[in-house]
Amino acid sequence: MAELDAGTVTVGRYLAARLTQLGCRHLFGLPGDFNLNLLDEMLAGDDLEWMGSANELNAAYAADGYARVGRCAGAVVTTYGVGELSAVNGIAGSYAEDVPVVHIAGLPSSEAIRSGARLHHTLLDGDFLHFVRMFAEVTVAQAVLDATDPAGAIDRVLETMLATSKPVYLGVPLDLARHPVPADRLRTPLVPPPSDPEAVAAFTDALRDRLPRMDRLTVLAGPGVHRRGLEASVARLAQVPGIRIASQVGSKAILDETHPASLGTYLGVNTKDPGSQAVVDDAGVLVMVGTVFSDFTTGHFSHRYQPAHAIELALDHARIGPAVYPGVRLEEGLAALGEVVADLGFTPQEDVPPTPVPPAATDDAAPLDHTTMWALLQDWIHPGTTLIAEAGTAFYGAVDLTLPDRSDLLGQPVWSSIGYTLPAAWGAAVARPDRRPVLVIGDGSAQLTIQELGRLLSHPSAPVVLLLDNDGYTVERKIQSPDAVYQDIPRWDWTALPPALGASGAVVHDVGTTGEFRETLDAARDATAGHFVRVRLDRDDAPRLLVAIVAGIQKANALAGR
Amino acid sequence: MAELDAGTVTVGRYLAARLTQLGCRHLFGLPGDFNLNLLDEMLAGDDLEWMGSANELNAAYAADGYARVGRCAGAVVTTYGVGELSAVNGIAGSYAEDVPVVHIAGLPSSEAIRSGARLHHTLLDGDFLHFVRMFAEVTVAQAVLDATDPAGAIDRVLETMLATSKPVYLGVPLDLARHPVPADRLRTPLVPPPSDPEAVAAFTDALRDRLPRMDRLTVLAGPGVHRRGLEASVARLAQVPGIRIASQVGSKAILDETHPASLGTYLGVNTKDPGSQAVVDDAGVLVMVGTVFSDFTTGHFSHRYQPAHAIELALDHARIGPAVYPGVRLEEGLAALGEVVADLGFTPQEDVPPTPVPPAATDDAAPLDHTTMWALLQDWIHPGTTLIAEAGTAFYGAVDLTLPDRSDLLGQPVWSSIGYTLPAAWGAAVARPDRRPVLVIGDGSAQLTIQELGRLLSHPSAPVVLLLDNDGYTVERKIQSPDAVYQDIPRWDWTALPPALGASGAVVHDVGTTGEFRETLDAARDATAGHFVRVRLDRDDAPRLLVAIVAGIQKANALAGR
Repeated sequence: MAELDAGTVTVGRYLAARLTQLGCRHLFGLPGDFNLNLLDEMLAGDDLEWMGSANELNAAYAADGYARVGRCAGAVVTTYGVGELSAVNGIAGSYAEDVPVVHIAGLPSSEAIRSGARLHHTLLDGDFLHFVRMFAEVTVAQAVLDATDPAGAIDRVLETMLATSKPVYLGVPLDLARHPVPADRLRTPLVPPPSDPEAVAAFTDALRDRLPRMDRLTVLAGPGVHRRGLEASVARLAQVPGIRIASQVGSKAILDETHPASLGTYLGVNTKDPGSQAVVDDAGVLVMVGTVFSDFTTGHFSHRYQPAHAIELALDHARIGPAVYPGVRLEEGLAALGEVVADLGFTPQEDVPPTPVPPAATDDAAPLDHTTMWALLQDWIHPGTTLIAEAGTAFYGAVDLTLPDRSDLLGQPVWSSIGYTLPAAWGAAVARPDRRPVLVIGDGSAQLTIQELGRLLSHPSAPVVLLLDNDGYTVERKIQSPDAVYQDIPRWDWTALPPALGASGAVVHDVGTTGEFRETLDAARDATAGHFVRVRLDRDDAPRLLVAIVAGIQKANALAGR
Repeated sequence: MAELDAGTVTVGRYLAARLTQLGCRHLFGLPGDFNLNLLDEMLAGDDLEWMGSANELNAAYAADGYARVGRCAGAVVTTYGVGELSAVNGIAGSYAEDVPVVHIAGLPSSEAIRSGARLHHTLLDGDFLHFVRMFAEVTVAQAVLDATDPAGAIDRVLETMLATSKPVYLGVPLDLARHPVPADRLRTPLVPPPSDPEAVAAFTDALRDRLPRMDRLTVLAGPGVHRRGLEASVARLAQVPGIRIASQVGSKAILDETHPASLGTYLGVNTKDPGSQAVVDDAGVLVMVGTVFSDFTTGHFSHRYQPAHAIELALDHARIGPAVYPGVRLEEGLAALGEVVADLGFTPQEDVPPTPVPPAATDDAAPLDHTTMWALLQDWIHPGTTLIAEAGTAFYGAVDLTLPDRSDLLGQPVWSSIGYTLPAAWGAAVARPDRRPVLVIGDGSAQLTIQELGRLLSHPSAPVVLLLDNDGYTVERKIQSPDAVYQDIPRWDWTALPPALGASGAVVHDVGTTGEFRETLDAARDATAGHFVRVRLDRDDAPRLLVAIVAGIQKANALAGR
C-alpha cells in the first residue's frame, strides 16, 4: 500500500474529520474483526468519541436519534455482514424519515474481495457485494472504497446525504482504512448543493403574485424543518399577523404549541381539535413546509386539503400548485416565503380555543389510566425537554400533548419500528445533554431493545423513563384479536432491570395509582439522576388518538378484504 | 376476494399445513399490523405452536437453532419492513450455514401494493418490493403471493428450500392470508428432488473403480450430514475396518468422538492433535461428505489435502476428482459409498492416541481459567446434550472438547454473528426438549440478544447457561488493540438478570474459583430447573484454539496491508 507522508492522512482519519465537519462528534457501533483498523484510525484523533452499543440495531437507532435531535449527521460503524445486516432496519428507518445517517461497514481486505476468498462473515459464494446491494435499497448513496480515489468517494456519498437528508453507506475494506489520501481536501468543507439563484428569484416573484394581501394563510410544517434546522424561520412566520401554523406528527414541537399562532398537530380527522383541522383543510392558501404525506400524517387519508393546489417547500425544490421550481432548497424557499409575507397582512383566522385538557383525576387512590397519566404529564413537562415516545400507546398519547418551547418530540411516525425509541433516546441525550430526555415506552416495545436501558439511565442528562407495563402489545390488541396468544409477552420484573443493566445510580419507581404517579413526577422534577418508572396500566386502556387511528386501520384492512 | 368452500383452505392454513409436513411444529416471530390475519390463520389449527420472541433477530436465530437441532424446517413470521429487516441478519446466517428456514413476512394489502399507497412501515416511495429484493441476496427463493396461484408459489419456494437446505422468503399481503386455495394439494407432500438413478449408478460404479481394497480411506464429515439427518450413515461407515472419520467445526458431534474411528475435529494446522490432522491431510483417499470450505474449517487455508483430488458428496451432487455427478444427492451418494466400502477392507491407519486432557486443577481456591473450566466441563458433559457455544472464547473452547454420543454442538463457524447462540439455544430446546441445552456464551455476545434469557432458562429441558464474564470482547482484544475503548462493555449485574427477565425459577450461581465451578457443575448435574452460572474469568484468558486462530487472522490481515 502507499505510504503516508506529510500531505496525507489515512482514510479513517479523513472520514473522522469529515464527520466532525458535519457536526457529528460521536460514533455509535460495535467492533468486529473487519473494522478494527477502521476504528483505530477513526478514534485516533480527538474528533470523535466512541459510543459502543450492545448491538447494531440499537447503534443504528441511537445514531438516528442523535442526528434528529443534534440537527447533524449521525454515524454508525459495524463490521461486515453480521454487523451491518443487524443495523439495516435502523438505517431503513432513517431513510423513511429523512434522517442523515452514515452507515460505515468495515469490510474484508481488498484482496479478499477481489479473489472471492471463502471467509467467515460471508455467504461463502465469493460475492462480497451482497450487502452493499441490500443497502442500496435503503440508502441514497453507497460506495465500497478502493485505492483509486477513496476521499472522492467519501465526499460524493456524504454530499448526497447532505443534499437529500437520507442515509448513506460506506464500505471500507480493512486495508483501505489506513490508505493515504490528500489532507488538503479537508480544507474545503462539504456543503449541500446550493439553490439556483434564478430559480429562487422566479419562485419569489411567483409567490408574490400568488399571495395577495388578506388571504387566509396556513402553514403546515413538517419534519424537513427539523432536518434543516429551520425552526427559527418557522417561528418568524408565526409572528406575521394572520398566519396560523400547524405541525405534523414528525415535527410536533416545531413551534411552541402554546404560541397564539399554533394550531397544534394536524392529523386529518384524527386532529385533536376539529377547529384546527378546519384551519388547515379550508385554508385560503396552504403552505406545506418540509412535510411528509402518509397514512398517519393525513389521518388515514382523511385530509380535505389538496396537496396539488398547495404551495410546497420541499427539501430540494419548491412548488406552487402545478409549477415546480427545482433548485429551490428548503432554506431559500422558506427565506423567500418569509420575505414575501413580511410585506403582507393576512386575514385573521378564527381563534381556535385551546382544547380543554381534562382535569387530572383528583382521586389519588384510583388506578392510573392513560387519560390521567397524560394530563399529569402535560402539567409536568417543561421547556427544554426531549420527549421520546414509542410507537403504540405512548406516541399516540404524546401527540395529543401541548408541548412547550424548546422541546423535541422524537418518534417514528412513518417507519414505526417498535423498540426504536429506547436507543434513540440515548442517542438524543448524547447529542443534546443540555435537554432532559423523557422516554415513554410500552413493555412490548421495550423488550426489543432493552439492552441500552443502563446506558440511557446513566446519562448525565438525568433521563426519565416511563415504562408502560400493560401486559403486551396493546396497540395490536386494539387492531385485531386482542386475546390471541401472540399478543402476550413474558412478564419481566421491570423494577429490577435498571440496576441489573448497569444503572445502579438510577431511582426506580413502581406506580399504579394517580397519587403514586403524581408523587413520582414530583420526585423526578429536578432530579440529577436517571429515574425509571414502571407505570402499571390496564391491558386494554389506550389514549384517545390510538382509538381513533385504529378505526382507520381497521377500515383500510377491511377494504383490503380481510 | 374469493370465498372459501368445502374444497378449499386459506393460504394461511395451507402454509401452516405445509410447514407441519416439513417437521416444523413451532412458529417464531412477532405480531405487527400487517401480519395479524396471517397469524390468526396460521395458528387457527393445532398444527403450529406460537413461540413469540422479544425481537425479530432473536426470532430468526431461534428458528435457525430449531431447524438445525430438529433436523427440520424452521419458520419465522414478521411484519413488513420494520419486522423483516430486523431478522435479515439471522436469515443470512441460515444461508451461509445451509439451514432451511422460511421467513414469512406479512405485507400490506395487494391493493396498497398495487397502488403504491403511502403507508407507515414503507419508504413512502410507492415501491413495496425493496425488502423482497434485499432478501433475494440472502435467500434461495422468494415469492410475494398474489391471487393467481398462491399455493403453487408456496410449494415452489418450499421445494427450493428442501433441495438446497437454504432459507427462503414468502411475502403474504394481508388479504392473501385468507385467500382460498385448493385443499387437496396438501395430500401430495413436498419432497426434495430425487436423485437421478442413472447418475447414482454411474457414480457407484466409478466409486468401485476408485476405491481399491487396502487404500487408506479418511472421511471428512461436514454439516451437510446434519442437515439431511444422515448421522446414522456416517456411524455405519465408522464400523468399516480401516476407515477413519474426522468432523468439521460445524458438525463436530456427528460421530461419538470417543469412537475408535473418530479423528475428532479437523482444522488444518489448528487441529488439536497433529496426528489426526495428518490422517486427513495425507489420506490415500479423502471423502468429503457435506463439508464446508472456509477460513475456519481449513485452519486459515493451512490444509494440505487437495479438495480437487478428493471424492466429494455434496448436498445436490457427487464428485470424484474432476468428474462431477449432478443429480446424486447426499443421501444416495452416502448410500452408494456405504455399499461400496462394505465389500472392501482398508489399510488400518495409525491409531491416533487421544490427546491427553490436562488434568483439572486440583487447587479449588485457584481463580478459574479457561483450561480448568473446559477440563471440568469435559468430565461433566454427558450423552444427550445440546452444547451451544457462542463465537469467541466459548466456541473455540468447545471445539477442543471430546463430545460424547447423541450430542450436538451448535454454533456459527461460518457466519459467526455474535449473540446468535442465546436465542438459538432456546430454539434448540424447543426442537428437542429431550436433550438438555448447555449454552456457553461470553458477556459481550450475551448483551446483543439477552432478551431471550428468561425464555431459555424457563424451558422444561432445564438448560444450563454459562455466562463467561470477562469484561468485554476478549476475542477482538486478542486480534488487535486489546485496550481500545471499543473493546469495553458496560458492567451488568449478571446474576440479577435471570429473575428480572422472567426466569424466577432458575438457580443462579456466581463462580470465580475452580472449587466453586466444580460445585456448581455438581449442583446442575441432575437438576430439573434452569441453571445460570456467572463464570468470572480474566479479561485476557483464552482457550488454546482461539490463540492459534488469532495468529492466522493476524497473518491474513497483515498480508492485506494493515
